[in-house]
Amino acid sequence: MTLLDQVCSIVGPGNVLTAAADQESYLEEERGLYHGAALAVVRPGSTEQVAAVVKACAEAGIPMVPQGGNTGLCGGGVPSEDGRSVVISTERLNRIRAVDAVDFTLTAEAGCVLASLQQAADDAGCLFPLSLGAEGSCRIGGNISTNAGGTNVLRYGNTRDLVLGLEVVLPDGQIWNGLKSLRKDNTGYALQHLFMGAEGTLGIVTAAVLKLFPRPADIQTALVAIPDPDAALHLLGRARRASGDAVTACELIPRIGLELGVRHVPGVRDPFDAAHPWYLLLELSSSRPGGLREALEDLLAAAFEDGLALDAVLAESGDQRLAFWRLREAIPEAQKKEGGSIKHDVAVATSKVPEMIRRCTVAVEEALSGVRVVAFGHLGDGNTHFNLTQPVDADRQAFLADWGRMNRIVHDIVVEMGGSISAEHGIGRLKVEELAHYKAAVDIDLMRRIKSAFDPRGLMNPGKVVPPLP
Amino acid sequence: MTLLDQVCSIVGPGNVLTAAADQESYLEEERGLYHGAALAVVRPGSTEQVAAVVKACAEAGIPMVPQGGNTGLCGGGVPSEDGRSVVISTERLNRIRAVDAVDFTLTAEAGCVLASLQQAADDAGCLFPLSLGAEGSCRIGGNISTNAGGTNVLRYGNTRDLVLGLEVVLPDGQIWNGLKSLRKDNTGYALQHLFMGAEGTLGIVTAAVLKLFPRPADIQTALVAIPDPDAALHLLGRARRASGDAVTACELIPRIGLELGVRHVPGVRDPFDAAHPWYLLLELSSSRPGGLREALEDLLAAAFEDGLALDAVLAESGDQRLAFWRLREAIPEAQKKEGGSIKHDVAVATSKVPEMIRRCTVAVEEALSGVRVVAFGHLGDGNTHFNLTQPVDADRQAFLADWGRMNRIVHDIVVEMGGSISAEHGIGRLKVEELAHYKAAVDIDLMRRIKSAFDPRGLMNPGKVVPPLP
Repeated sequence: MTLLDQVCSIVGPGNVLTAAADQESYLEEERGLYHGAALAVVRPGSTEQVAAVVKACAEAGIPMVPQGGNTGLCGGGVPSEDGRSVVISTERLNRIRAVDAVDFTLTAEAGCVLASLQQAADDAGCLFPLSLGAEGSCRIGGNISTNAGGTNVLRYGNTRDLVLGLEVVLPDGQIWNGLKSLRKDNTGYALQHLFMGAEGTLGIVTAAVLKLFPRPADIQTALVAIPDPDAALHLLGRARRASGDAVTACELIPRIGLELGVRHVPGVRDPFDAAHPWYLLLELSSSRPGGLREALEDLLAAAFEDGLALDAVLAESGDQRLAFWRLREAIPEAQKKEGGSIKHDVAVATSKVPEMIRRCTVAVEEALSGVRVVAFGHLGDGNTHFNLTQPVDADRQAFLADWGRMNRIVHDIVVEMGGSISAEHGIGRLKVEELAHYKAAVDIDLMRRIKSAFDPRGLMNPGKVVPPLP
Repeated sequence: MTLLDQVCSIVGPGNVLTAAADQESYLEEERGLYHGAALAVVRPGSTEQVAAVVKACAEAGIPMVPQGGNTGLCGGGVPSEDGRSVVISTERLNRIRAVDAVDFTLTAEAGCVLASLQQAADDAGCLFPLSLGAEGSCRIGGNISTNAGGTNVLRYGNTRDLVLGLEVVLPDGQIWNGLKSLRKDNTGYALQHLFMGAEGTLGIVTAAVLKLFPRPADIQTALVAIPDPDAALHLLGRARRASGDAVTACELIPRIGLELGVRHVPGVRDPFDAAHPWYLLLELSSSRPGGLREALEDLLAAAFEDGLALDAVLAESGDQRLAFWRLREAIPEAQKKEGGSIKHDVAVATSKVPEMIRRCTVAVEEALSGVRVVAFGHLGDGNTHFNLTQPVDADRQAFLADWGRMNRIVHDIVVEMGGSISAEHGIGRLKVEELAHYKAAVDIDLMRRIKSAFDPRGLMNPGKVVPPLP
């Protein structure tokens, strides 16, 4: 029996896709950076089926590529071009196994779409706080495997902080059952943290127990015009203190980000009469009813006096709140329409964000005349999407050819400042070389040792995350 | 040059303790369960000295035992009796390197006493929330290595959730520098999470960047008399929702715990006129001034109506608050004075705590007539110290001889319920066999593979955490 026959007998022939047209959407990377090839795309319907498929592939020596919603931004979920791999899609593992409002937990299979989990939590009077641009199509297994970030990290943590338990199929097909609802468990090494952020190189996440929180009853959102990112830092600290640490989003937006949004994205408009150099989208939320509005108004009144705020609008309705968020979320889309973009997903200590933006801006403008810096993002996490838009009227391809050179300039500064070259998007395939360049030898060595310990034959998502031996 | 000469040349002869009297306090386990022996106790004064000592020991093939405040409850920090090991104490690594109230971070060396970090945070207008009984003498490196829990986990997480970055000396003497202040960093495997909870078996934590939080401005504490643990669960859920998730402690106390405290511990008194079966110590705190008192009063008013609360006292002063806490903290001390205690540090899903207490109580009472169950602890984390006090007038030694049998009864039920046999105290030496008994073979195998990958010669804290091959 060939491997494909074996796999068909496990998942049924309808769930083994071999025709090019059927495979198409599984092989193309989100931004079009990679287009892989696969022996087959397999869609198991249960953890046991995943385990059986992995065991069969392992015995046949066939590389495996786990895939969730295929929304990753670093190519971690697409196979290489050689066509030797089997893609294992989790999309049929889409049952919510339990929602428990007493425990504040939700147990879900890996293929559940993030938005469906947010909805299930909401239906139970709770909040599942993970929130990011792709939430309508990304799947929780991918979120976990990449330790996804998003807009609520400041208050609720990264994905790894939202996971209580995991179930994982190991590279040899064994099932690791860590699917527990425990808030404290000090019985040995933190295996589940290894799988989170490993981008499927150590095993395939098949299910998880997630933390829920009380659903907010009071949400206050302000768009604040500010003189510079330093002011944003001070506002953030004041807001955390005044609100009982209820700042659930703190997004920095540069003038150019707003301008591009207004120019290219329908429905985006500037709520202020005058132009301001920077904006801060500040959102407070709490399940305690009342009080945040006053806290926010007091905060802003003091900020005007101290010159930290130039102008501000508070959302008076849910629609107005969404309009503020749209202004923030429109930036990547607007950049795309404005021409080529070179992207960086960097983090430094929160207090160093202003310095990082200043230094990197000077450096890239010196290196490429006319380049337009669009630095925005999750100020509260020290995470900036330091994106570059091509000079006006420049050639798009010529600009994009500078990707590596620009990356090196920005990443050199970020790393010198103790920062991260991939704050929330991961390494995947896109940043493996960059990782090898910047990580200390001892880090790379430890990663290789772990990879060998879990996957001695290197069959699980090969070529991702762990730099190959030189 | 002998190893000891070498080590003396690294740290200075005054920091190499070989006389029995000098070594004494480093060799005795907190509860007197173990008394180890050591070639020497070495006290390095810097990370570089730790690295050099480890390198020298590794080259000489000498086992090493990292030690912080030596307050662990499972023998993880004391050497074995064979006298072949070197104890490496972190006590001289006691500098606070930085406190940053803008970043909300504190950078400390491993030997800093926990209470000194709490104080440093407070001095900067911030909170470092880790809090536990031994805080006056335990050291942060030990807290990190054991992933310590304590009373604030419900709101702020376990120690691993409070750590942004780590510096670790690996078993071969290399320094792993993960000492970063990043709130997002997805560049490869979560190495720092492996070191946390590994109890020094994968390396020695030498420094850490810790998360700070806004300092509470409003603290409200209530002692609530309740009919049973189920009522506590409902109160917890309501309190989380009503307070904006500001419940920072939720401690369950049984009638017998209060009685023993009143009997044995000076200053502990029962604040109620009548006797009640159970009590809940509920604390809300927030940096947002005002509002929690009203929330708590409303909550209790509703609870009286619904029969969830039988009586309640709200702390009217800081002293009264401390008296409530003293009532809770007195339980272990009071148990000690009442006779022999057999202890369990177990966790189940929060919603299953009442069932766990019921089932375990029936089982141990059946197995040993007259045994007195004192089940108390961190209800909000699902973590119960299910402790047994000897029957009245029983022989202490005969009772303690039942330790293993009682453990088996309790742990069987807890594991069957998907729980943990060591919620916050870790494995150390005390629970290695218990771990081997209860963990799945695949878990133990993965732990051994990791241990071999990091410490192939098994020199770093041997005999702890990882069960030996049979």
